[in-house]
Amino acid sequence: MAGSVGFIGLGNMGRPMALNLVKHGFPLIVHDIDPAKVEPLRARGATVADSPERVAAGADRTICMVETTAQAETVIAGPHGIVRTARPGHIVICMSTIDPFAARRLADTLAQSGVAMLDAPVSGGTVRAESGELSVIGGGAPETFEACRDLFKAMGTKIFHVGGLGQGLAMKLVNNMLVQVNAVAVAEALVLGVKAGLDPRTIYEVVRVSTGTSNAFERGVPRILARDFSPTGTIDISYKDQELETAFAKQLGAPLLLANVSQQVYQMARAAGLGKQDGTAIIQVLEKLAGVRVGG
Amino acid sequence: MAGSVGFIGLGNMGRPMALNLVKHGFPLIVHDIDPAKVEPLRARGATVADSPERVAAGADRTICMVETTAQAETVIAGPHGIVRTARPGHIVICMSTIDPFAARRLADTLAQSGVAMLDAPVSGGTVRAESGELSVIGGGAPETFEACRDLFKAMGTKIFHVGGLGQGLAMKLVNNMLVQVNAVAVAEALVLGVKAGLDPRTIYEVVRVSTGTSNAFERGVPRILARDFSPTGTIDISYKDQELETAFAKQLGAPLLLANVSQQVYQMARAAGLGKQDGTAIIQVLEKLAGVRVGG
Repeated sequence: MAGSVGFIGLGNMGRPMALNLVKHGFPLIVHDIDPAKVEPLRARGATVADSPERVAAGADRTICMVETTAQAETVIAGPHGIVRTARPGHIVICMSTIDPFAARRLADTLAQSGVAMLDAPVSGGTVRAESGELSVIGGGAPETFEACRDLFKAMGTKIFHVGGLGQGLAMKLVNNMLVQVNAVAVAEALVLGVKAGLDPRTIYEVVRVSTGTSNAFERGVPRILARDFSPTGTIDISYKDQELETAFAKQLGAPLLLANVSQQVYQMARAAGLGKQDGTAIIQVLEKLAGVRVGG
Repeated sequence: MAGSVGFIGLGNMGRPMALNLVKHGFPLIVHDIDPAKVEPLRARGATVADSPERVAAGADRTICMVETTAQAETVIAGPHGIVRTARPGHIVICMSTIDPFAARRLADTLAQSGVAMLDAPVSGGTVRAESGELSVIGGGAPETFEACRDLFKAMGTKIFHVGGLGQGLAMKLVNNMLVQVNAVAVAEALVLGVKAGLDPRTIYEVVRVSTGTSNAFERGVPRILARDFSPTGTIDISYKDQELETAFAKQLGAPLLLANVSQQVYQMARAAGLGKQDGTAIIQVLEKLAGVRVGG
């Protein structure tokens, strides 16, 4: 497709993703409810529109990268939403992490106008969004997915098409659930080890080459040892994702024991004022409960 | 040291470990409460003794590889235990996974006779015990540890000295806690994903290269997909380890949220008759609760 690409939602993830599309030569029409957020894109030659419906009127494909399910519903199906102007053949690409069931309802609404939709949430945080190395985990019709692969390749390096509409989101929630549970396990293990008198640097050296290791361990422990809780992804965002995971599991009738307990730890971290810190900062909750400090 | 090496406890782990010592030329004196278990060692030239005290009488260093804390206490400090005959300078190497506090008490008892002790639990299961590729995670005085490195190198490839007496055990419990929590998380995630309609093989392909991956995921999911629950380590043994982990944490005052919930899943698996199966078989508990089957 050669037409313009719409991009709605220019926050911490959306802005670098849109900038990578500009870098790859895609003509963009952008919108954000916060007028200040469009300026970095305007400065790179993007056209600015003042509503989702005006974005969709000028584009063949429109990416939605807002934060919440409610925002995605407003952008796609609200009174000034994409559905008002998108022509048959238009493709809406929902890259937000939202409720998979809501995504399917939005796709049904769009289908009535002959508009196709993909769910294509991303993984990798702001660092990989900036470097164009996100993972894109997509669901939807295969031909629709292939028609958007050029966009995904401009923003990410690992591009997965995992099933029908909503299944990209389902896979993202499955992956994130593991990240969060593994992260709480890391915090518990470090606090236990330090209470037992182990040097946390030794725990890191031994466990990272042993059976207990995980991506959460390998990435998280060096940051905890350095007491660097600057956000690569915040506790607030993880908590929002956990809300989606646990609600999704309830709708499906799937038991989530560890994921629900883990969410409570993130909840405690938010109550302790750590919501804007990196996910690894949840260890501060367990440290306080146990009266120890790991690393630093 | 050139004298004989004692080896007590020739079960699924002890037998292959002792055989690797024979293979490396160490003269062994062996004992097991089950007379049948000494025969594979007798056939390879090991001397057989009928009690721990007789083993220690003929050896400079004695390895204890029994299953439980109570068994280790009997072998080391019981009425016919190592302590009855071990001479000053003897080294007792406790390679069982037992309560770290009990290990320290045993070391104190032995010290009264001038006998040194190491705790040196292993990781890797029966497969790596046979291939001589165990991880050995040791605690105790550095010079005592170095005096036994030749034995460890005959049984393992990753040899860690992590701190004072009991800290090898503490590290082992920290690592195992992560393994078990991560394994329950894998089971929850797979059941959620399959309930959502995802192909479990696709979950494997996506998550193993994504942020949710772990050693438990990478090793466990292929076995679950193949429905191969033949034991590399049993649910019963993991449950025993969890008993040690949770008791240790209670003694230290360390909160273990996920580890305690995970233990309940292993408990449910035991109640369902899965105790002798591989740890990955815990997924059958969640499958039954959710009414789905993953893979196969």
